Amino acid sequence: MFIHKLKVRYAETDAMGVAHHSSFFLWMESARVDYLDKNGYPYSTMEEEGFYLPVVEVTCRYLLPVKFNEELSVSLKIQKLTAVSVKIGYEIFNSKGNVVCRASTLHPVVTKEGKIVRMPQKMKDLFLKDLKENL
Amino acid sequence: MFIHKLKVRYAETDAMGVAHHSSFFLWMESARVDYLDKNGYPYSTMEEEGFYLPVVEVTCRYLLPVKFNEELSVSLKIQKLTAVSVKIGYEIFNSKGNVVCRASTLHPVVTKEGKIVRMPQKMKDLFLKDLKENL
Amino acid sequence: MFIHKLKVRYAETDAMGVAHHSSFFLWMESARVDYLDKNGYPYSTMEEEGFYLPVVEVTCRYLLPVKFNEELSVSLKIQKLTAVSVKIGYEIFNSKGNVVCRASTLHPVVTKEGKIVRMPQKMKDLFLKDLKENL
Amino acid sequence: MFIHKLKVRYAETDAMGVAHHSSFFLWMESARVDYLDKNGYPYSTMEEEGFYLPVVEVTCRYLLPVKFNEELSVSLKIQKLTAVSVKIGYEIFNSKGNVVCRASTLHPVVTKEGKIVRMPQKMKDLFLKDLKENL
Repeated sequence: MFIHKLKVRYAETDAMGVAHHSSFFLWMESARVDYLDKNGYPYSTMEEEGFYLPVVEVTCRYLLPVKFNEELSVSLKIQKLTAVSVKIGYEIFNSKGNVVCRASTLHPVVTKEGKIVRMPQKMKDLFLKDLKENL
Repeated sequence: MFIHKLKVRYAETDAMGVAHHSSFFLWMESARVDYLDKNGYPYSTMEEEGFYLPVVEVTCRYLLPVKFNEELSVSLKIQKLTAVSVKIGYEIFNSKGNVVCRASTLHPVVTKEGKIVRMPQKMKDLFLKDLKENL
Repeated sequence: MFIHKLKVRYAETDAMGVAHHSSFFLWMESARVDYLDKNGYPYSTMEEEGFYLPVVEVTCRYLLPVKFNEELSVSLKIQKLTAVSVKIGYEIFNSKGNVVCRASTLHPVVTKEGKIVRMPQKMKDLFLKDLKENL
Repeated sequence: MFIHKLKVRYAETDAMGVAHHSSFFLWMESARVDYLDKNGYPYSTMEEEGFYLPVVEVTCRYLLPVKFNEELSVSLKIQKLTAVSVKIGYEIFNSKGNVVCRASTLHPVVTKEGKIVRMPQKMKDLFLKDLKENL
């Protein structure tokens, strides 16, 4: 399971004194980017090759508030793979090991013009490998 | 049905040239705040009275990309009401009247300390009225 | 003097209970965009014509904190105009009429590739008119 | 000289394909927080002791655009110290070692109520040490 670590920024908190619910989506995005980097297929390379993975659906359940400067671990795993899309699942843990949020994002593979296309083999292989490990 | 209007900010776009998926949550929040203002129970009053409506669950489906400076209409309606929580549904429309996103947020009523409490009558009445209108 | 109105979003506050200092730059940007819209030369038109006004310098003095949902008025005026750049000044007022911030942004005129070019006549005329009114 | 490293997030870019000018302030804030952490006086400890360092003035010159996922180094040094405030200077470098931005932030020491107070000795010592090293 892939883990991305980060610290909650002050700007990500709100007047309730905890991280704003929209911040979690920035962290999951950072985790995706980091995951692709570490697996040798950076998002920027993907874009140069003409493929994009926009977000078309998200779900998120917030279980515990998180504070400024807390160290969080975003775990990420491939939940579902089709010929043209990937669904990614996330659990975010605080430093005590408690789950603070469970979430998912769905991404079709599209061209720069937004046309849905078949996932390139390199991408498929990467996600398949992860999918198998999680079985 | 309540409608909140806004324009997409430049800062809300990303390198794909369209609004970032996290921006939609800021717009829905603005719509909620506007809704409570227009219905005579501002969020700030609610907080002064010791009640908070944190976001504990969200879902969002993105149907169309939106560009910088597009005028959007966020429609909001009460979807479900319990003694201690409210679920709100949203549809965001672009200026051509197309739905760009469908979403929901779930909010328990909590105290400043985060304890879940019964919804105050004033809040219940407001949401109930809306819920009935949507039947 | 041009005035752009807005309300402070919850997401723009931080754990100190007031708007985060970076939020002010989003508001000034909205004011610039609104100013160009209202003066018949929308930023999107400008971009379609191949001209961009990136921010290359900012200054900002924060005089008073602003709270969630406060209504603010961003006043904007052209401070300095050269053949290739424009400097814009801002004062942001709260609903009591107090200045909460004084700021400036400097913008060269550039092409999509980032090359500095002479300001197109239409843009110059717009800014000159405003500059004269402020004398 | 203190260095804080980070990678540009996708959400921090805008439709021009580069990082939005407001993002730089988030990075400088992260650098300040990291600086205080590494020097044994975390911002959260400071807040618990009743001291805050709000931003009351910023300047920033943007020299080079930065792209998504670029690795940046934020260098930070104490520029000026008074009995009640600190001015911090920043240079942000890209991975080629080029300066992408030069900036400063000014912070008075205030109580939770916003009253300006003398800097606590621990904080003064920390900043003084850094100030001397930079001479």
